[in-house]
Amino acid sequence: MTDFTPIPTSWVGPIRISGNAVTDEVTVPLATYESPLWPSVGRGARISRQVEGGIQVTVVDERMTRSILLRADDAATAVAASRTITDRIDDLRMVVEAQSRFAKLIDVDTEVVGSLLFVRFAFSTGDASGHNMATAAAESLIEAILAFSPELEYGSISGNWCSDKKATAVNGILGRGRSVVADILIPRDLVETGLRTTPERLEALNTGKNLVGSTIAGALRSANAHYANMLLGFYLATGQDAANIVEGSQGITYVEAREAGVYFSCTMPNLIVGTVGNGKGGGLPVVEDALQRIGCRSGGEPGADARRLAALIGATVLCGELSLLAAQTNPGELMATHRVLERGERRTA
Amino acid sequence: MTDFTPIPTSWVGPIRISGNAVTDEVTVPLATYESPLWPSVGRGARISRQVEGGIQVTVVDERMTRSILLRADDAATAVAASRTITDRIDDLRMVVEAQSRFAKLIDVDTEVVGSLLFVRFAFSTGDASGHNMATAAAESLIEAILAFSPELEYGSISGNWCSDKKATAVNGILGRGRSVVADILIPRDLVETGLRTTPERLEALNTGKNLVGSTIAGALRSANAHYANMLLGFYLATGQDAANIVEGSQGITYVEAREAGVYFSCTMPNLIVGTVGNGKGGGLPVVEDALQRIGCRSGGEPGADARRLAALIGATVLCGELSLLAAQTNPGELMATHRVLERGERRTA
Amino acid sequence: MTDFTPIPTSWVGPIRISGNAVTDEVTVPLATYESPLWPSVGRGARISRQVEGGIQVTVVDERMTRSILLRADDAATAVAASRTITDRIDDLRMVVEAQSRFAKLIDVDTEVVGSLLFVRFAFSTGDASGHNMATAAAESLIEAILAFSPELEYGSISGNWCSDKKATAVNGILGRGRSVVADILIPRDLVETGLRTTPERLEALNTGKNLVGSTIAGALRSANAHYANMLLGFYLATGQDAANIVEGSQGITYVEAREAGVYFSCTMPNLIVGTVGNGKGGGLPVVEDALQRIGCRSGGEPGADARRLAALIGATVLCGELSLLAAQTNPGELMATHRVLERGERRTA
Amino acid sequence: MTDFTPIPTSWVGPIRISGNAVTDEVTVPLATYESPLWPSVGRGARISRQVEGGIQVTVVDERMTRSILLRADDAATAVAASRTITDRIDDLRMVVEAQSRFAKLIDVDTEVVGSLLFVRFAFSTGDASGHNMATAAAESLIEAILAFSPELEYGSISGNWCSDKKATAVNGILGRGRSVVADILIPRDLVETGLRTTPERLEALNTGKNLVGSTIAGALRSANAHYANMLLGFYLATGQDAANIVEGSQGITYVEAREAGVYFSCTMPNLIVGTVGNGKGGGLPVVEDALQRIGCRSGGEPGADARRLAALIGATVLCGELSLLAAQTNPGELMATHRVLERGERRTA
Repeated sequence: MTDFTPIPTSWVGPIRISGNAVTDEVTVPLATYESPLWPSVGRGARISRQVEGGIQVTVVDERMTRSILLRADDAATAVAASRTITDRIDDLRMVVEAQSRFAKLIDVDTEVVGSLLFVRFAFSTGDASGHNMATAAAESLIEAILAFSPELEYGSISGNWCSDKKATAVNGILGRGRSVVADILIPRDLVETGLRTTPERLEALNTGKNLVGSTIAGALRSANAHYANMLLGFYLATGQDAANIVEGSQGITYVEAREAGVYFSCTMPNLIVGTVGNGKGGGLPVVEDALQRIGCRSGGEPGADARRLAALIGATVLCGELSLLAAQTNPGELMATHRVLERGERRTA
Repeated sequence: MTDFTPIPTSWVGPIRISGNAVTDEVTVPLATYESPLWPSVGRGARISRQVEGGIQVTVVDERMTRSILLRADDAATAVAASRTITDRIDDLRMVVEAQSRFAKLIDVDTEVVGSLLFVRFAFSTGDASGHNMATAAAESLIEAILAFSPELEYGSISGNWCSDKKATAVNGILGRGRSVVADILIPRDLVETGLRTTPERLEALNTGKNLVGSTIAGALRSANAHYANMLLGFYLATGQDAANIVEGSQGITYVEAREAGVYFSCTMPNLIVGTVGNGKGGGLPVVEDALQRIGCRSGGEPGADARRLAALIGATVLCGELSLLAAQTNPGELMATHRVLERGERRTA
Repeated sequence: MTDFTPIPTSWVGPIRISGNAVTDEVTVPLATYESPLWPSVGRGARISRQVEGGIQVTVVDERMTRSILLRADDAATAVAASRTITDRIDDLRMVVEAQSRFAKLIDVDTEVVGSLLFVRFAFSTGDASGHNMATAAAESLIEAILAFSPELEYGSISGNWCSDKKATAVNGILGRGRSVVADILIPRDLVETGLRTTPERLEALNTGKNLVGSTIAGALRSANAHYANMLLGFYLATGQDAANIVEGSQGITYVEAREAGVYFSCTMPNLIVGTVGNGKGGGLPVVEDALQRIGCRSGGEPGADARRLAALIGATVLCGELSLLAAQTNPGELMATHRVLERGERRTA
Repeated sequence: MTDFTPIPTSWVGPIRISGNAVTDEVTVPLATYESPLWPSVGRGARISRQVEGGIQVTVVDERMTRSILLRADDAATAVAASRTITDRIDDLRMVVEAQSRFAKLIDVDTEVVGSLLFVRFAFSTGDASGHNMATAAAESLIEAILAFSPELEYGSISGNWCSDKKATAVNGILGRGRSVVADILIPRDLVETGLRTTPERLEALNTGKNLVGSTIAGALRSANAHYANMLLGFYLATGQDAANIVEGSQGITYVEAREAGVYFSCTMPNLIVGTVGNGKGGGLPVVEDALQRIGCRSGGEPGADARRLAALIGATVLCGELSLLAAQTNPGELMATHRVLERGERRTA
């Protein structure tokens, strides 16, 4: 029998957004035990509404991946097989199309290590995040490959070069999930009145903390303060597989102090999200309601809802990142805010 | 006004566990949209009950960290200041004790990059995961340091060398959170009957997929199939800050085929979890109930409940990892299981 | 005025090699201050001559890369420009061909971070390693791009996404240099008599040390004992830019104990080497002589000499890796060997 | 019989240096096939001589490490043994002192992965880089540990957690080799006249290329343009084991545009260098002569010569890094310089 764990959820915003997937003002849901996240994102949202066009979000790419592991006797055999596989990509495309209405094979990469052959498939998966679609397709692809390359043996349906829910470099470099860049140019006076800081201090903090600090931490394709917090809240509230915040958290905050103000950007190459599939649909009314309220039930062309979702997430991440970084430029501000919020929480609880 | 997002939750087990923090059979809660996780962990739990002593879990270490960023004019000044800080660790200990009942400063590391000085504090935090405790302590420590080293300037309350919710190497190497190793020696015949595989196939899969596959993925201190899934489920059900699955997911599965059977282990250096603090306590009855049912409300010596919690998580991760790897040794098993489960889900929904 | 630093150099082998670039027995030069390297590689060479076909080396790929950095006002502009660049790859190909007899543009990758646009060009460069060829081509490509996308500004001729002589993940994943896999199946009795160990102990050592040990070290796409030593020796002796051992060292040793013996392989995705260009040619007779003696002056089709060179390096790395790992399976053997060798050195010095 | 490979070598400078290991003007040798390196470092040296105090170099730490791998039946046994080892550090210190005049054990770290126990020893090694000293000491330490913990078995004399000549995170975080920071504040007009650029353009380039560009490359604790080039040249000319440029290359360039000019710094945590031991001493007169000319034959207290050497290397790296970054701020400058230099080379050859 299934119970439910109720995660406190608040609607924050509206956030003003423009770009190639959304031009709208949208209030977004964040499910989290860490309630200070709500006013933090809220402060960023307030900034967005005071800037023409708000936060600009560009959806750059979308794909879901699965890598398989095959075994050969030696490297020469594995390399020869890898070439056969690459050459027969059109056959493989047909294999995928024969077993799925939505999944399409868009790329194949191979890598040989000794006698091991790894093959990484990239699929477009419509509005789904595509975990199951990719696994099912990969299973058919293994069968097809073993049929035309009988010198290979099955190794694993997943070879960890996918990579799902693990801290790796490959997802950012070859792509996995929706790739999104959110940015905004905030006028100098709004930085001062709305964020109690300056463009120069924001840039210096980002360089010292997110870029240099992450480097000494031995970070991997990751240079941000707390993308994971916003991703977790948004993923839970909209029925996503929130374990994918692992790769989602690997993004880069880039800040420039300009004459006009501060250019602030969040680059998120690995948002594994969708509007249909596991966790979505009729079974969970709260999730369904959330997806409707944020406008991800348009029923337009396949992928449009998921791209909108990814863009909303991108804007939300920027709101929270901006607010936290601004707070950290001032000694004592972070804890003071937490203390006020927690007192407030207790009083209203 | 706060709503709630209800996450489907199932109690799985009991898992048989022994070791330096728990010797018990415990049923555990997993809150997740990915319902196939439940029978997967359940299969591992069944194995644990057929082995004497079940899964052995060793809690190795516990600490919470926060790094600060200070600025100097040049490296010579920063290095000199770093030595003063290290020399005055006893003064800094007193600063921490003066402002917190629970937090104790147990370690200080410094790193200089040009004129930037990063200082990483490690605290013991009793039964709390310690995020806020560490931040509050760090704030007092900054004040103390700037008082005795006025040649430094405030840079940031967090310098990303902590590192919180980011994929980095430092957490595993210097430590962050509870560090846990779970292992089990499963007799050869039980591997075959209970997991439909062999010790040799499990070892070969782990080497090819988790070790070599992760290497080509450019993984960072991470060699496992899906720790993040079990961590997310357990963290949500017990009121943890689930964004910490980012570092939690960086663990290592190590498998050896032995004459007696298969030695299977999961090493998790970074479990950021606690039994008191944010998300726990009276405000959320479901979470409170979950913590009570798993025995984490003993009220014993500070830290004992949190160590029990970490050990339970360790055992749960092993159950899920073992089950998935066993399934992946067999072509077609993973999707077949998913399909059966999902049909079951739909029928009962 | 130029002096010379004489690096002690020994010719080791012959190594028996077969594969898609070399089928031959070749003695190879190693220039190094670490003289124990010579007998170590020599032991591996001896093994190669006792196996039919010797070490099999497969050259998998070859390319040289250079990434440039361009600046835009915002991400939307950068992303739009990145698409223009990708769409105009044929124009860019012609730009490259117009300014070089050898360089050919074979791939273009783009990545946007905020308002920064990184473009990574991959070239085939014939028998050259291609550093200068790639830089010269990239310079022309910048001019061409800024001409058709005047909304961009010059950022840098190198954006570090190339990546030259740095420890990164991108080179292994997108490719840089010649990519080579060397492997051998050594009969069980030869493992015992020639290497004083067993297939099982070699496999266990490789798993524990090169795979798990590298993982806890926070290694990046690197799982080997000492590729850097052999690469340095070979690179110096043949006029290569030996600073490229940084990425060259990022390779993977994979070992399987099989019934017939031990399958031992070394995968080296990033050998930045050539037989023409800087450091080669008439100016340095010792280097010229070395290239001739190892058969890399065939004057055949462009690239053939360089592929032969890469294959020889691959086989040499395997010899040294095999020998060291075999020694490390036995307590005390490594230092005992060093002590004998050093005494011998002193006596003959 | 041993031959020699003559590496072209030029003396560059003098470089003006001050700090805790050297206050002097020193001309330094660089052995390399890449002759454009010489004028590039030379330009940086010229800058150093026009700044009061020149390049300031701070030696932060020095140690050599070796990790061993031991095997236990399970994690509980491994963890218990790791505590015994840590508790008996004084005994282990005596083991090291009994077998070496110079090596001293200064730190022990342990990490358990399943049943595998890794122990990382850090030694001070006087003026030597300490490879052999550390290995010999580790061998004695294994014997001692197996004597008092007979439940353990020998795994390997090196467990790759050392890590020698591999791209890892551990060396920077726990320390390996001499750790050095070099920095300089260059007046604004000198930046313009001597480097044809501005403080702002240098800072922007460093942020875009070395920090952000390295991040997308998936770099590991590495954010610089070409440390490896200077390290290779210096290491070869002074008899170092140049394969250690692999970890040496993992350093961070940090730049700040200030009112007074540009603050430019190079942080190099892992310089594995020494003035005695392999490759040094009487056997190689050119190396001996180089060490004398740069003042590393003082015969002062153990370690002083090696610290001087490390400081000189740090200053040299800064010269080359500064010059290349300055060139890259200007479109076309890099190739134009290369072309002039190469024509010059040919004419004088």
